[in-house]
Amino acid sequence: MSQQIPTSLEFDPTDPVALTQALVRCASVTPADGGALALLDAVLSAEGFSVERPTFSEPGMPDIENLYARIGNEGPVFVIAGHTDVVPPGDLAAWTHDPFAADIEGGVLYGRGACDMKGGLAAMTCAAIRYRRENPDAPGSIAFLVTGDEEGPAVNGTVKLLAWADARGERFDHCLLGEPTNPAAMSDMIKIGRRGSLTGKLAVQGVQGHVGYPHLAQNPIRGMVRLLAALDASPLDAGTEHFDPSNLEVTTLDVGNPATNVIPAQARAVFNIRFNDLWTPETLAAEIERRLREAAGNTVRYEVSFEPTNAVAFLTKPGPFVAMAAEAVEAETGKRPALSTTGGTSDARFIKDYCPVVEYGVVGQTMHQVDERVAIADLVALERITHRLLTSYFAAAQQA
Amino acid sequence: MSQQIPTSLEFDPTDPVALTQALVRCASVTPADGGALALLDAVLSAEGFSVERPTFSEPGMPDIENLYARIGNEGPVFVIAGHTDVVPPGDLAAWTHDPFAADIEGGVLYGRGACDMKGGLAAMTCAAIRYRRENPDAPGSIAFLVTGDEEGPAVNGTVKLLAWADARGERFDHCLLGEPTNPAAMSDMIKIGRRGSLTGKLAVQGVQGHVGYPHLAQNPIRGMVRLLAALDASPLDAGTEHFDPSNLEVTTLDVGNPATNVIPAQARAVFNIRFNDLWTPETLAAEIERRLREAAGNTVRYEVSFEPTNAVAFLTKPGPFVAMAAEAVEAETGKRPALSTTGGTSDARFIKDYCPVVEYGVVGQTMHQVDERVAIADLVALERITHRLLTSYFAAAQQA
Repeated sequence: MSQQIPTSLEFDPTDPVALTQALVRCASVTPADGGALALLDAVLSAEGFSVERPTFSEPGMPDIENLYARIGNEGPVFVIAGHTDVVPPGDLAAWTHDPFAADIEGGVLYGRGACDMKGGLAAMTCAAIRYRRENPDAPGSIAFLVTGDEEGPAVNGTVKLLAWADARGERFDHCLLGEPTNPAAMSDMIKIGRRGSLTGKLAVQGVQGHVGYPHLAQNPIRGMVRLLAALDASPLDAGTEHFDPSNLEVTTLDVGNPATNVIPAQARAVFNIRFNDLWTPETLAAEIERRLREAAGNTVRYEVSFEPTNAVAFLTKPGPFVAMAAEAVEAETGKRPALSTTGGTSDARFIKDYCPVVEYGVVGQTMHQVDERVAIADLVALERITHRLLTSYFAAAQQA
Repeated sequence: MSQQIPTSLEFDPTDPVALTQALVRCASVTPADGGALALLDAVLSAEGFSVERPTFSEPGMPDIENLYARIGNEGPVFVIAGHTDVVPPGDLAAWTHDPFAADIEGGVLYGRGACDMKGGLAAMTCAAIRYRRENPDAPGSIAFLVTGDEEGPAVNGTVKLLAWADARGERFDHCLLGEPTNPAAMSDMIKIGRRGSLTGKLAVQGVQGHVGYPHLAQNPIRGMVRLLAALDASPLDAGTEHFDPSNLEVTTLDVGNPATNVIPAQARAVFNIRFNDLWTPETLAAEIERRLREAAGNTVRYEVSFEPTNAVAFLTKPGPFVAMAAEAVEAETGKRPALSTTGGTSDARFIKDYCPVVEYGVVGQTMHQVDERVAIADLVALERITHRLLTSYFAAAQQA
């Protein structure tokens, strides 16, 4: 893998393609940084941003570096948020291009993180630099919240960086998080919220015995099938104005009994629910417990437990800021993007406790896959969209 | 573990308690023999039986010793069948007596194999010896088929020993297999057949994906739950005159997905069916395939396969031999035993291809468990019952 890290800038920091390439060439598979934050530090410092790189720790976990940058001393503060860490490349032989080479072929830039989300972070950085170069006396501030722990446990990342900034008195007004929100084209989708995530563990107890004497045993798989069928029997809800229906998926189901003549003693399952704003983790857990209780009756002995979650459902209500973001996308792509709350969780779940947050980035089709890539045209479009949003945001601030 | 093996007989070979103790003291956990067959050889040879100890082999499996003994040159040939191997003792600390010491306490003999089935084999051996001592000129023959591979793969055991004897021209008329058939008391149960056993493997294919994007994935667990619920939805049959209903148990169900945010690609299950004389392995497999096809429709992609089986359902039809055995039990216990086909498989599934076979032995409550044991009184009763059966069997032969 190429791990060459530029020591001085050898590219134009307003060129989103060049900056994406430079970031992709930093092999920053969580928890490694690969020089990515040092690169961003160099780029932003050179433009007059004050940059800090706090490292956060947690017992039993690797230390993680983060970056906070700001230009301007007054409000409103427009925050650009993102992460420089990437998921592992997986089977290197399956890639048609070195995942850390950032090769460009046929108008497409290949590499791990190309769309998730070095491309998005690079385009937004370039847009902020261009905006500030063009408007050195613009009102308000632009800040960056960048972490190296989003794809990993997300413990030493944005959640701590926000608390760290808050403790220093930093206040944020609005945030743009550069995750790849578009399914297929740059005009597709802005995310204005996320579903919550709740993970549960279910264990059904049986009585071990010989398959030839089933009356002396009790097969926990029979009970498990009954409970899982009950969880799946009717929808949790029908969705809400801005959210899809809540959805439960059983992610694993294990017995581990090697003997075909033995009825096992226990069956274990794990399920994950992505839930909308009709639920809190507590009300949802209560509903699951009610369904299990009803299906189990007096015949299935089971235990269910839920993992602690910080992923509650949230919505950034459509209003002037969301409209401004949608208008910027429409102006550059010719099409109004959908306002969505679909998909997995993101660091927006932490940011929303500090200021309204919308998510928008490049096309995410290849995220986490072999041959992850981003179209050059999309990087250019994202730089222009971000620039347009910054322009209207601070113009509105000046008028207010 | 005690592995003391008597080199010359230090006990009365017509005492079923002493012979059980001597056999239990041979640590014959499959495939080990621990001197058990040499002991039987010594006991039977001393009484005039001609004894052979063929060893059978199979690539990749340990060689296993077997024993064939016969006294008498003419028919009818009454066969006593059994095995000297035992299952492992498991957690030694959980035993209140050394599993290979054969301690007697409170009228009970403790040890691995006490009931399954060294006790049964010892009592029958003693009965045969006493009968022949008392009737040196009795008509017909008594033969022994004893293997060291019943609890293991059962490949180098009774199935080969029968073929070996058959190739030598040995013909058998009736067989008594000394497995522990009684649930609680010596008057409980004679087995006159066994259900068959069929093992199937079921794999459901899905499409892996992120739980946040369930429309891009397909969860195989959902399909698996549907298929298993369908297999369990209605009984396979209602049982027959001599057989319980056929019964299916899912013995394991595994996905092995460690990631709670990933919908897995595949779910695998293994099931075992104990089936009665309404089915052959072929008709049963066809019925399972039909149920799966119907439940899967066009939405669940699955594969099912069945392991080869030599355990077909069989019945030794109640007739003079079965009646004679039941009468012997009733005469000694005061109660007519049930004629049953319940429980697991046994070597009777091989013997039934050569001659009618019934199974009867001591109380099996503690078989394969910690503190396996047999009541001294039950050993004595079994010796008397077997002696009575031999007496009436050969008396009937003389009259015929």
